[in-house]
Order: sequence, then structure tokens, then C-alpha cells
Amino acid sequence: MNGAQALIRTLVSCGVDVCFTNPGTSEMHFVAALDDVPEMRGILGLFEGVVTGAADGYARVAGKPAATLLHLGPGLANGWANLHNARRAHTPIVNIVGDHALPHKQLDAPLESDIEAVARAVSGWVRTSTGSESVAADAADAVTASREGRGQVATLILPADVSWSEARGPAEPTAPAAAGAPLPHRIEAVAAALRDGQPAGFLVGGRVVSDEAGLVAAARAAAGSGAKLLCETFPARLARGAGLPPIDRLGYLAEFAEMQLAGLRHLVVVDTKEPVSFFAYPGKASVLVPDGCQVHHIDEGGVDPVAALVALADALGAPAEVERQAAVRPDAPTGELTAQTMSEALGHLLPEGAIVSDEGNTAGLFVAGATAGCPRHDWLTLTGGSIGQGMPVATGAAVAAGDRKVINLQADGSALYTIQALWTQAREGLDVTTILLNNQSYAILNMELQRVGATDPGPAALSMLDLTNPTTDFCAVAQGLGVPAERATDAEGFTAALERALAIPGPALVEAMLPPTL
Amino acid sequence: MNGAQALIRTLVSCGVDVCFTNPGTSEMHFVAALDDVPEMRGILGLFEGVVTGAADGYARVAGKPAATLLHLGPGLANGWANLHNARRAHTPIVNIVGDHALPHKQLDAPLESDIEAVARAVSGWVRTSTGSESVAADAADAVTASREGRGQVATLILPADVSWSEARGPAEPTAPAAAGAPLPHRIEAVAAALRDGQPAGFLVGGRVVSDEAGLVAAARAAAGSGAKLLCETFPARLARGAGLPPIDRLGYLAEFAEMQLAGLRHLVVVDTKEPVSFFAYPGKASVLVPDGCQVHHIDEGGVDPVAALVALADALGAPAEVERQAAVRPDAPTGELTAQTMSEALGHLLPEGAIVSDEGNTAGLFVAGATAGCPRHDWLTLTGGSIGQGMPVATGAAVAAGDRKVINLQADGSALYTIQALWTQAREGLDVTTILLNNQSYAILNMELQRVGATDPGPAALSMLDLTNPTTDFCAVAQGLGVPAERATDAEGFTAALERALAIPGPALVEAMLPPTL
Repeated sequence: MNGAQALIRTLVSCGVDVCFTNPGTSEMHFVAALDDVPEMRGILGLFEGVVTGAADGYARVAGKPAATLLHLGPGLANGWANLHNARRAHTPIVNIVGDHALPHKQLDAPLESDIEAVARAVSGWVRTSTGSESVAADAADAVTASREGRGQVATLILPADVSWSEARGPAEPTAPAAAGAPLPHRIEAVAAALRDGQPAGFLVGGRVVSDEAGLVAAARAAAGSGAKLLCETFPARLARGAGLPPIDRLGYLAEFAEMQLAGLRHLVVVDTKEPVSFFAYPGKASVLVPDGCQVHHIDEGGVDPVAALVALADALGAPAEVERQAAVRPDAPTGELTAQTMSEALGHLLPEGAIVSDEGNTAGLFVAGATAGCPRHDWLTLTGGSIGQGMPVATGAAVAAGDRKVINLQADGSALYTIQALWTQAREGLDVTTILLNNQSYAILNMELQRVGATDPGPAALSMLDLTNPTTDFCAVAQGLGVPAERATDAEGFTAALERALAIPGPALVEAMLPPTL
Repeated sequence: MNGAQALIRTLVSCGVDVCFTNPGTSEMHFVAALDDVPEMRGILGLFEGVVTGAADGYARVAGKPAATLLHLGPGLANGWANLHNARRAHTPIVNIVGDHALPHKQLDAPLESDIEAVARAVSGWVRTSTGSESVAADAADAVTASREGRGQVATLILPADVSWSEARGPAEPTAPAAAGAPLPHRIEAVAAALRDGQPAGFLVGGRVVSDEAGLVAAARAAAGSGAKLLCETFPARLARGAGLPPIDRLGYLAEFAEMQLAGLRHLVVVDTKEPVSFFAYPGKASVLVPDGCQVHHIDEGGVDPVAALVALADALGAPAEVERQAAVRPDAPTGELTAQTMSEALGHLLPEGAIVSDEGNTAGLFVAGATAGCPRHDWLTLTGGSIGQGMPVATGAAVAAGDRKVINLQADGSALYTIQALWTQAREGLDVTTILLNNQSYAILNMELQRVGATDPGPAALSMLDLTNPTTDFCAVAQGLGVPAERATDAEGFTAALERALAIPGPALVEAMLPPTL
């Protein structure tokens, strides 16, 4: 058994049995070993941004890490942006980055680079495996590291000779530290503070919003203190729909978020960070916590955030039951195809149990409202602001989703970052319906150009934000990559096309031609 | 005048008047300033790998740097792989990487990351601009740094508030250190060594092979010592064709390179590095210099390499004239479309003055022979081994090329890394003819799988190297991105399609359907 075989067997025994790959020469022994360990499913992506984003989407749905297989520094760099999003999502991922054989590294061959430096900037754990006798243990440590704390990216650098040399055999799984129990004195202190009758709010995220138990705990704690309940702006996975406690997301626009938080004197922050604006703007504050508002934490130091919310709700004497979202869907829309009518069509048709990979950006602004009362579903958002996430995350989510339908709400500008994901969807027969929101612009930048104070842009500036000349024909691109596609130009046509696409038990794309501006 | 305006004016005054961009919110003041400095041409790429590769191709042809505009850590990471190729090509590039406003950085907002760490791994010079009063001088320093030595990637990180704050005005250009004159004692020592009558060779690269003067100097020096003349495996720019001294490239395959170097007792290495194998293989040597062969350098310490070769040739008493390549073209091919007949068609039609961006990989193996006697042209190769270079480099080369035709020899697997380059070619009306070599596989990896000793691959391994199921329809993808395309399936059809594509004064793609294996 060589190092690659020992490594893959160890990953499988640690529960990691999907590997998204884009290999090169230094990974050939790993690739060859896939046939020796058939429990590991290798899935090829045609660009590393697809590979890493798919691993992120997979783990958000499966609740356990996938592995990636990347080719040296450039392969890692190509996958870095979606690893950045995974880092912000606290997604567990086990990157295997192939490297030159150890004696070859000193020669500064053309593909030599400082892989560790690039890896450290996006990983919570980095190790270079230095021998085939230790590579299996390295793999077990990598899986454990990926599951530490809130979850993180773990990167194991695998020199080619470590893969090809004789190994001892697989290693035993190890376990990450378990989450801690709530600290009674901390819970009681926060409960006491909240009893002062001043305006209060909860800002929750992470695991709290990922399932019913967390949402109910948060809703109880908020109700028990008369507090406003808010979700972080970009949750990794938000459970929502009829029957679940509803929760508003903090706005992306700082002006809007400030209104949501205005007047609060207490803010309890659970499994997320204190709110700051996404970007800085001239003359505006970046910190969104209002002046005079006290911030409270109940889950610091590895405390289970849902258990902490339950304890706080109990301490506040909150009732067991909370408000639940009523079941309601929009009617099928008619007339012009706009961001609003597109959203109504989706709300009209969203299947029960759907998983939505949302990189709709500006074109997706009305979707939350239109789908709030749909049957239960999960919403995966762009956690780190690095565009090109939506299609890869949808791809990986579909691998993990079993018979649940995946819907990818996809802005056009972002789609062109990682469009190769469609090919993997076609090869693997993944059940992803892509709604391609073609508004022919980096619309968010037109807005941001004004917001940063560039109020009279000229033609040179505007052309940098404009996706016309030529306008991409996403149906042609999708078909070229093996995914059936059709274009819709009015609300009725879009609704019908979406219904047809959802009926296909595999990938399909509907291109929604939206007005160039919102 | 704000910082962004001062920066762009400074770039222009330093001779940098093309900026390939993919901006985000933190770069909006830079974008707005493009209208204030119309001498700067902004060119949008829909993915950062296109942006950085285009800057590389531009500089290889223009002989001066372009700027890039990238969006924070993820934007830099997306462009990293082609910067790696540029680093290996010693291409001067000035990266401008937007960052959060300085007071915003401590808040760890979603897009925060360690940009400097990612930049240092691929740049020879990195600086974060810390104030609008110094940003213009920073820009002048960045341009100078990019031109230091053999040329390098210089990365200037530009916080948003440095862009939007009031600046002093543009800075004056500075000059890099000039190359040094040859050192007479070193030249004489090498000449003396070469006079011993033992088998000798020259391995030259970089500036030496980029134009006629360098090639003639190298050919004279080799002829003067009866030495074999070889070019580095992957030169940034190789001048070739009828009337120029011919030069063989050192083989990519170590086995082949070893044959080329076998028996040499002297190897003079000029403007390149001592040869090592691209990858390591089990049981094989990575160092390619034969045992007992003495390596000589004549251009260390910043000495002008062409002047050093001229001095050495003179010291050796070499004649002024050297062998020149005869003018000869292959006949138009007939029959099956293969890597061989595709190459003959290109050799039959290659226009005078063409610039070839070669990422043909295995499918391009026969092209060098078939085009050797064509009219003079330049050949740009994949310098760092990071695939996805060909289309972006062709794009940038065309911006710099004036009325010269750019031909992109493009392997299918690599094409799908940065296919978005076609859109920029369409928008800018760039005169690029893409020959898409569709052999439906990562063919090089099928070969490498055997070479590393994985001699009996199973179906799981083979599926990781296979680009069928589905086979990409590159014509559909190209048309979707605004570039006219046609597919050819036999030699006559390919020759005719290539002739039609070359006649179009803008982008066009010919998809050559090649046998799935070589």
C-alpha cells in the first residue's frame, strides 16, 4: 500500500468519501489509488474554483467534509476564492494539494511556489506531509482539524514521493473537541441584562439558523426578552419556509442594517460576529452596533450555541412555542419579466425540500419575500463576498442532496467566474436547476459606484460595469457544456420554462432576461 | 485630484497606458478616474485569470508592462495562476489590488484576507499604499520594480480610502538599474574553457531568444565553439521563422532532454536556469545537467545577456554570419484531422508577423516542425506550467500587436480554465484566431499516469482524465461569448476553416476535432 492509498483509505474511515478533483502530474498516484478504494467517489471539476466551491456546498448540505484534490500552488490559488467563502461559512473542507516530490522542491522547477503561504491565508490548519509513514495520520488529523470549533478549511500538502512511497497503512479516525455546555453564570448575566426593559435584539447565525432546533431556540430567547430577532447577512445555510420560525436577515446595505439595529441597547450575538459594514464608504461608519448598545455573547469558548440559546430562553421564562411562518405562495406572475416577477414565479413553484444556492446578488433582492411561505427549504448564501460561488456550491450541494432538488439563483456576472460547473453537473447527472439572471451588467457595481461618491461616472467607467457588447448567450454556453437550456423573456414564459426545468431529473438552465437596470 | 487619479496619471507618465480590469466596490474610485485620465485604456475581463494572463501577453509583445486592477484577496487569488506563469516568464506586470479602507481592515469584514501573503508568493515586489499623499510615488516605484532585472510582477495594494482621499498629484517616473556590461575576465574564462575541444552546448532563453539580435549572438557563440545550441523548454517569447537562426527547444520530457544534453562536458547557460525536469518521477534524476558537465554563466549579476553572448562570440573568433532558417511551408494536408495534419495546415497558412500563443500541450507537439520555415513570427509559451494561460495571453498580445495576427493554439482542457477570454476578444474586436484542439481528454495526464508508474489505471482513475461525457461543444461556448466559430473534422475542412478564420479581422475560433488519443 502506497501513501496515496493509505491516505484515501484513512479519509474514508474518517467519513470523507467524496473527493472533488482537478489533478495534475504530481497527483497521479492519488488518482490511480481511487480504483483501489472504491468507497471514495471522485468527481472531476474542470476548474479548481468549481472543485473548492463544490466541496463547500457538499459540506453545507451533508454536514460533513468532502476532500478536494488540487494541483500545486496554481491549483490551490485557482480554488482560493471559493475557499475564502468556505472559510467565512465555517465549512469543514479537507484540501489535498499535491506538490513536487520533496527532493525536487529545492530545484525551483517551473511549478514550484510557496504553497503553504497561499494555503495559510485561507485555511485554519495547514500541514505538509513529510513521509509516507506519517501521511495517513496526517489525513486523520486534517479531517479532525476541519471539524474543530465552528468548522474550517484544513489543507494537507502532499508531495508526490509521499504518495508513491510504501506506507504503513491507514490511520484511525480521531475526534474533534466536543462543544461545551452553556456557562450558567454567563447565561444568567445576559438574562439579567435583558430584563432591564430597554430595546434589545438578537443577531444569530451559523448553526443556529441551519435547522429548526436552532431557529426555535433563537425565536424563544428573543420572544422571552421582547427582543428583535435578526439573522446574519450571509448565513452558510438558512432553514426557512412554512412551519419554521421566520427570521429577517441583516441588510447588506449598511444604511438598511443601521435602520434594523437603530435604538437597540442590547445586542446578543450568537454563532456569528458583531455586525460591520461589508465595505467602507467615505464619511460613513463601518461599525454597525449603535452607540450605547451593549453587545452580549453566550457561546464564547466553544460553547454549543443552540444549547446556550435554549438555556437563555429558559432563564428568561420564554414559552415553549413560537410564531411559525404561515404557508403561502405567490400567484403565477404575468407581464414583464423583472426581478420581482422572476421571484414570484420561483415562489409559485419552489419544491418542498429544495436547496437554494443563492448568488442572485442584486437580481435576487425580491426572492426572500416571495419564497418565505413556501414549503420548507434551505438557503445557501455567498458567505465571503467572493463571486463565482453559486454554481459550484449548487454542484456540491446536489451531490449531498439525495432526492432533494437544488436550485441555483445565479447572477450573470458571477456566473462567468465558474461557469465550468455546468459540465460537472452534466457528467454527474446532478439535479440542479439554474436560474440564470441575465441583467447584462455588474449591477451591484453601478449601485456601489454611486454609494462610494462617484456620482457622475463617464463612459470609460460605465463600460467596466457593463456586460453587453457582447451580451452573453448563456443558453449557448450551457448547451456547449452539456446542460439543456432555454431563454425566457416574459413572466409567463419564465414560469413555464422554470416548471419544465424543474421537471427534469438532472441539470437544466433557464436564462431569465431581466431589464438591464433594477 | 484624488489618490486614484494621481495613481493612474503616474502610471501613464511611466509608460503604462493599458489596464486590464475586473473591479469591485473597493476599486470604484479607480474605475471612475478612468474618465479623468483618457490616456489609460481600461479593458474589462470577466475573470481575473483573464486579466492577469492578458497583462502577461501584452508585456511579452509590447515590451513594457500593463497594469491590472483586481478586487481584494479573492481577485488576486483568481489571477494568481497566470501571475505565476508571468513570474516564470519574467514579465513586467504592475498589479493594482484594491483593498478595504485602512480603518476598515481591523474589522475583519467578510472580504478581509491577508493579501500581502498571497501577493508575495507570486510577486518580486509588494507594497501596501498607506496614504493618498504617497500613492503616486508608490505607483512610480511599482512600475520601476516591474522592470528591474529580468522583469517581474510588482503588486501595489491600494486601500479604498487611499483612492478616494485628496492627493498631491502625479509622481515623476523613476528608472530601473540598467543592465551591466559583460565582465571581460568572465568572458575570457568561459572562452578558454570552451577551447578544450570537449563537447559543449549553449542553453539560452529569456531576452536572448526574443529577437534576431539575441538569436544571432547565441548562434555565433555556439558556432564559434562548435557547440550545440538549445533554447529553454518554455521561453516567454521565441522569435522564429525563415531568415532567423533556428534553435531547438529543450524537451519537456526529461528522457528527451537527457538525450539532447547527453555527453556534454560544458554547458553555457544564458538568461535562463540550469535545466531540471518539470516534475520528479520515481527512480529518475531531476537534475538534467549530465554528470561531469561543467556549467558556465556569463550574465550573472545583471549583465546584459545578449551583450555577453556577443562578447563571447567575438572572444571565440566566431564568424559574423550564421546559418539561417530556409523558407519552406508544408503543403495543405488531406485526409484525417490529426495533431500532424492540423500542424501542417497551420504551417501552410501562418501569416507573416503572426504571434502564436501556444497552449497546445500534447496536441501541439508537431507544430514546431511544421512552422519552422514559415515567415517570421513570435511564439509565446506556457512558461510556468499553470494551465489556462493561452487564451488570456492571446488576448493581451492582440492588444499590443497592432496589425499583427494573433493565433492561439489552445488545448481543450486548458481552454476551460479561462474561456471567458473570448468575451474580451469580442468586446475589444481583437484579431485573435483560436485553434481549439479538442481531443476530449487531459491527454498529457494519460501520458503522465504511465510515466509516474501507475501502469494499470482503472476506470475511476481514467475518468479523472477524460473530457467526454459530455464532450464540450466549443463552438457553442464561443458563440455564446460572442466569437464566431466553426468545427472541422477532417484535414481539408480544417484548412479551409482556418483560412476563413484568418481572413476575419477580429476574433474567430476553429474547433479541430482530433482523435481522442495521440
